[in-house]
Amino acid sequence: MKITGARLIITSPDRNFITLRIDTDEGIYGLGDGTVNGRELAVASYLTEHVIPCLIGRDPFQTEDIWQYLYRGAYWRRGPVTMAAIAAVDVALWDIKGKALNTPVYNLLGGASRNGCMVYTHANGADIAEAVDSVQKHLAEGYIAVRAQAGVPGIASSYGVPKKGKPYEPAERGLPSESLWSTEKYLRFAPKLFDAVRNAVGEDVHLLHDVHHRLTPIQAARLGKSLEPYDLFWMEDATPAEYQEGFKIIRQHTTTPLAVGEVFNSVWDAHDLVRNQWIDYLRMTVSHGGGITSAKKTADFCDLYQVKTGYHGATDLSPVTMAAALHVGLAVHNFGIQEHMPHTALTDEVFPHAYKFENGYMHPGDAPGLGITIDEELAAKYPYQRAYLPVARLLDGTLTDW
Amino acid sequence: MKITGARLIITSPDRNFITLRIDTDEGIYGLGDGTVNGRELAVASYLTEHVIPCLIGRDPFQTEDIWQYLYRGAYWRRGPVTMAAIAAVDVALWDIKGKALNTPVYNLLGGASRNGCMVYTHANGADIAEAVDSVQKHLAEGYIAVRAQAGVPGIASSYGVPKKGKPYEPAERGLPSESLWSTEKYLRFAPKLFDAVRNAVGEDVHLLHDVHHRLTPIQAARLGKSLEPYDLFWMEDATPAEYQEGFKIIRQHTTTPLAVGEVFNSVWDAHDLVRNQWIDYLRMTVSHGGGITSAKKTADFCDLYQVKTGYHGATDLSPVTMAAALHVGLAVHNFGIQEHMPHTALTDEVFPHAYKFENGYMHPGDAPGLGITIDEELAAKYPYQRAYLPVARLLDGTLTDW
Amino acid sequence: MKITGARLIITSPDRNFITLRIDTDEGIYGLGDGTVNGRELAVASYLTEHVIPCLIGRDPFQTEDIWQYLYRGAYWRRGPVTMAAIAAVDVALWDIKGKALNTPVYNLLGGASRNGCMVYTHANGADIAEAVDSVQKHLAEGYIAVRAQAGVPGIASSYGVPKKGKPYEPAERGLPSESLWSTEKYLRFAPKLFDAVRNAVGEDVHLLHDVHHRLTPIQAARLGKSLEPYDLFWMEDATPAEYQEGFKIIRQHTTTPLAVGEVFNSVWDAHDLVRNQWIDYLRMTVSHGGGITSAKKTADFCDLYQVKTGYHGATDLSPVTMAAALHVGLAVHNFGIQEHMPHTALTDEVFPHAYKFENGYMHPGDAPGLGITIDEELAAKYPYQRAYLPVARLLDGTLTDW
Amino acid sequence: MKITGARLIITSPDRNFITLRIDTDEGIYGLGDGTVNGRELAVASYLTEHVIPCLIGRDPFQTEDIWQYLYRGAYWRRGPVTMAAIAAVDVALWDIKGKALNTPVYNLLGGASRNGCMVYTHANGADIAEAVDSVQKHLAEGYIAVRAQAGVPGIASSYGVPKKGKPYEPAERGLPSESLWSTEKYLRFAPKLFDAVRNAVGEDVHLLHDVHHRLTPIQAARLGKSLEPYDLFWMEDATPAEYQEGFKIIRQHTTTPLAVGEVFNSVWDAHDLVRNQWIDYLRMTVSHGGGITSAKKTADFCDLYQVKTGYHGATDLSPVTMAAALHVGLAVHNFGIQEHMPHTALTDEVFPHAYKFENGYMHPGDAPGLGITIDEELAAKYPYQRAYLPVARLLDGTLTDW
Repeated sequence: MKITGARLIITSPDRNFITLRIDTDEGIYGLGDGTVNGRELAVASYLTEHVIPCLIGRDPFQTEDIWQYLYRGAYWRRGPVTMAAIAAVDVALWDIKGKALNTPVYNLLGGASRNGCMVYTHANGADIAEAVDSVQKHLAEGYIAVRAQAGVPGIASSYGVPKKGKPYEPAERGLPSESLWSTEKYLRFAPKLFDAVRNAVGEDVHLLHDVHHRLTPIQAARLGKSLEPYDLFWMEDATPAEYQEGFKIIRQHTTTPLAVGEVFNSVWDAHDLVRNQWIDYLRMTVSHGGGITSAKKTADFCDLYQVKTGYHGATDLSPVTMAAALHVGLAVHNFGIQEHMPHTALTDEVFPHAYKFENGYMHPGDAPGLGITIDEELAAKYPYQRAYLPVARLLDGTLTDW
Repeated sequence: MKITGARLIITSPDRNFITLRIDTDEGIYGLGDGTVNGRELAVASYLTEHVIPCLIGRDPFQTEDIWQYLYRGAYWRRGPVTMAAIAAVDVALWDIKGKALNTPVYNLLGGASRNGCMVYTHANGADIAEAVDSVQKHLAEGYIAVRAQAGVPGIASSYGVPKKGKPYEPAERGLPSESLWSTEKYLRFAPKLFDAVRNAVGEDVHLLHDVHHRLTPIQAARLGKSLEPYDLFWMEDATPAEYQEGFKIIRQHTTTPLAVGEVFNSVWDAHDLVRNQWIDYLRMTVSHGGGITSAKKTADFCDLYQVKTGYHGATDLSPVTMAAALHVGLAVHNFGIQEHMPHTALTDEVFPHAYKFENGYMHPGDAPGLGITIDEELAAKYPYQRAYLPVARLLDGTLTDW
Repeated sequence: MKITGARLIITSPDRNFITLRIDTDEGIYGLGDGTVNGRELAVASYLTEHVIPCLIGRDPFQTEDIWQYLYRGAYWRRGPVTMAAIAAVDVALWDIKGKALNTPVYNLLGGASRNGCMVYTHANGADIAEAVDSVQKHLAEGYIAVRAQAGVPGIASSYGVPKKGKPYEPAERGLPSESLWSTEKYLRFAPKLFDAVRNAVGEDVHLLHDVHHRLTPIQAARLGKSLEPYDLFWMEDATPAEYQEGFKIIRQHTTTPLAVGEVFNSVWDAHDLVRNQWIDYLRMTVSHGGGITSAKKTADFCDLYQVKTGYHGATDLSPVTMAAALHVGLAVHNFGIQEHMPHTALTDEVFPHAYKFENGYMHPGDAPGLGITIDEELAAKYPYQRAYLPVARLLDGTLTDW
Repeated sequence: MKITGARLIITSPDRNFITLRIDTDEGIYGLGDGTVNGRELAVASYLTEHVIPCLIGRDPFQTEDIWQYLYRGAYWRRGPVTMAAIAAVDVALWDIKGKALNTPVYNLLGGASRNGCMVYTHANGADIAEAVDSVQKHLAEGYIAVRAQAGVPGIASSYGVPKKGKPYEPAERGLPSESLWSTEKYLRFAPKLFDAVRNAVGEDVHLLHDVHHRLTPIQAARLGKSLEPYDLFWMEDATPAEYQEGFKIIRQHTTTPLAVGEVFNSVWDAHDLVRNQWIDYLRMTVSHGGGITSAKKTADFCDLYQVKTGYHGATDLSPVTMAAALHVGLAVHNFGIQEHMPHTALTDEVFPHAYKFENGYMHPGDAPGLGITIDEELAAKYPYQRAYLPVARLLDGTLTDW
């Protein structure tokens, strides 16, 4: 089998997605997701101008060789744009391989190791009461794990909290919005939120929380300690991820489980975190970390240190990445949990897929390959529109991590 | 002062360069280089589609805030495309700041700490005799430091060796070429090359060598020991740079000085290498590492560990980066050496510049800002043409680091 | 531009200050502060007898070279006298550079990274009630961060507590006073103080506390834990600073943020504290740590470890140092907080300055250079008068850290 | 017994010395040396203006309490000026105590642990032949340990080599001289020097060499390896002393014994070096490291790690320090060697002393106290004259360690 062509489908059905389609001489094609939220067209250019010309004529079954070709052959390696582009190719190749062998991709990764992948979804509210309601609404939908965020009193725009009457979606069209952040107000507020939520939902629900890179290590340590009574499933992104050693400090002070890494793109970004067991869950997802080839290896490395997967799964990743993540999640031994922020109905319509949610779990489905297609005609009706994630500043105007 | 506009000049005067021009309301403009060899248009897209819209209206003197805005504000950070794009902006802002204050940029970085920046250039030959000739030719031009590479007998195409009758230039138009590599042949050959070169040139010449990521740590350790009699200035890129701990092994076995890091884009990529003093020179250059703002910080960090700068300076970086590197190099205390692979006459014509080479040293010149302009009319005559670096395979076909 | 002369202005407008003025052939001059509280004339001698003769004829823009000349060229390096003398020169040179380029110094350090620098001031009382009153008085003045100290029952003279009816000022004319100290009484008392203060002022005020080197590591760990309910911004100088590893012990036991280092003079003094993240704020100020050249480098080093600045800013540093600290603080990314113990009206009259306090923040002003002058005629009316910091002894008479 | 007065004797019998004389109510006085080469008057001011007023009325037998009073009571601690001033007091107090008890100081430090203190002296020459001659001349004088330095071909002014026809003395009157330095030339030369010297003198002579801070760690490692065939007693100051971890690298590569620390002033400066056993000899001398009180403790700490003393003993320390060093050296268990660069006849005449050199060893003599006096009348004939150590630059003009 030979690759005969490859092209991008750029579409914005409520939000922007970069989808790579690779075609072969046997009529089989595969899909990969190259979306990097807010920097989409850089990946598109990376693929179209620099990668696709190199793919033609290659054997799509050589996923390892092609991965190395794109990683080492690029010479300049790592980072979100490069690794998302490599991932788009790699995921599409696994989709082709699965289809060619007439088997779902998870069978090529070791087969199903579980019945389904536990997912968590997002609950949020302008205040504690609304957040509690939101958690309960999601429980009623069947979720058994919920991430809870609420507006912090005195902060105009808190991470994870939607604008009145709209679903939460941080990326916005136009230029980046700037929001102010007060660590102190948040640190006092978060335990109150979880006191209320835990009281409302009882002991059995998995509760998660996303700090979103806003704390120093010692602040995160304090927060972790103060959240211990509420038995969190995890505290996420407690301090900016590249300061790996900061997690050593957090780890010394609290038994609240720690997750980090949605901004990572390579096992090297997480190397110290994993081998020192400073975290419990690694969030680097399939499409931002170089694809299925590298995701499988990274998960296996994590298993040596009892670190589990907890892949980023917001709507900034297309359904193609969700499918890929579920195939990996079903197969690897140390699956932990999968984030599930459902796509809009329109996004789902553009990307018909085999994966399903039921009773708190998702399953990739048993269609050959990834089990996902794209309705190109529909996609064409929603052209790319520039959008950005917000930017955060401290009260004094200092640029801080959003 | 406010930024009023920014745009790219994409040109290929013998090779591709991505140049960012930022304009202000005071008529002062600055230039930055966003070239990533073989992936140029991804950076161009990153800048045009995602970064430039955010720059308009900002104060160009706020170099630190804008750096943080582009790094933390992008959310997805690090890697060659992202950091080259940030660098293009940052370097252009320093150019503006220097011009606005009517002083060369080096004065804003601490003033001149030396008379000039020692540079090394590339000598190479199809065999040892040619390589010796090439070294001597460069010495006759005034260089006092020369990197020597030669064709390895039995290997069709060695790194650093030009095709017959042409100047050495690894990037080629069309698709990536593939070359075969034999570590064993090379390991036996390299000491012979330096025995000949050292005998020919005497003790006072600085000799450098680039292993170009081809060895495992223990092979590199063996090579380092076998080169000790020839007093190398450095052995470069002995093992792929992201395997930082590999250098610990090399370091234990040899006193040959070590340089690495032209593929790095962040101080985090080099953190363990520097703080453990596993290397002597860090090669991450201004434009690939996020610009002057981060280059100054990284150099100062290195100085705590007696690591010096040794910036990448091949022709894949435009004269804008050469200018920026020389301003930083003249100012920081721990400047080591600067790579100088001269641009073609045509490239130099497109980028008129104040920097000069004389008697083995380069100086950035004393023009305000960076001291560099671009002849846009001439540039327009040389449109972008896709080109790639080669890819290397072992004799059995395994993809390896080029 | 050349340095044509330099001389000291020694004055005591309520307290002693050593001010260095450097003059140039272009009529521009710069000011630097060489004050070391209680050892002022040693710095004066260091500068007049040994440093000033070496400055004449040098280019004042070569801040890095001159710094290295004074540091490495002295051969005998580090320590308060040496580094304060180097700082006096370095700060004066940055003042000259800013004036010559007609821009405030912060623009040469990366531009403004925030709107202003949050400051904290000193509240104190003979007992808890007085201390609470003092905190509230400062809040009414606009401060949003206050350091609280109170007389410990059973200890005649506690650190940070003024004599009846006088503003607090530890240095006294005549010989050093000796005060007795009881760790045990203090350890029991401090949590009561903060229980009262926190209850009185509510959650939003930043509260700080200075232990002033009086505890062993395990005592400090105990205190840090016992203060956790009161959410301190920081616990300062918990154990003598040169015992860096003592902070490892403290760190293991408490999430109360830690600040230390007003007695430091070099990044080497803080090296282990920073790279191990044993502290959260480094207090080594501009004038005691070698000047702006080294302060910027040290702040950038700290940023790799999420350590922020929290510069010493008592009245033992002249307004020149306050100006320099605010310029650095406005520019560096990891500014934390600035101590602000206001100078007396007379001191302010001798040192007219552009910096201002408003609503809890200070700003260095936008005058070229540092924005500070000295009224030499007025200064001459207040000649130097010997004064000392107190000395502390334990109840059994053992000399201990004051 | 009470201290009734203290005053300085500042004299320059061929070079500058700061001598502190402390008087008591029993008519006994003591001498201490506060000389810091090139910064002498700063120490003088420190003592006269700030320390002496605090001494009056104290019990001179309370050496420990007074040491803590001056160290902790100064608040701003460490560094050459502060610690030399403290040392001057401390050494004078031990001199008083010895005289009062009518016993040599060594008896108060544990008594004589050996018959005498092995010393090494300086041999040097403009070239290898001269250096060999110089070594042999010193052997003829009875020395059994000699430090050898020689002019490096191609370097105008090498460290340790006298100007034609003059004894070697680096400090010069007038402004600091600037000398150029080439590491490469030196690295090739040093083994040749020791090959010649070792061949000339045979196996039994202790040979030492001073690198004087000129190498990076990996260069020092290379030099250490290349000197191994010549069995050096030590290689001194191989890299600047504050980069303590640099010695870890050197240590990995060579068994040549290492000495460092003449620029140190506190046990904290050497803490990592000693506890990691990265060195074999600590050179921090009595007068620069705070006096006899701290020298005894530091030596005892070193003994825990098999590190021995090897005190700096150039002519920049007065005979008072030589006396103090010999008393400590005779008493401590882990004495290693003592540097002995004899004072000029005039210096010796100004400081009549009991210590003696014989057959390679020195002995402090058995006079009560330190066994040293000062001829104040003669001293007064030689007033202070400003002098500086030289400054070194690399060939490109970079300021480097002299």
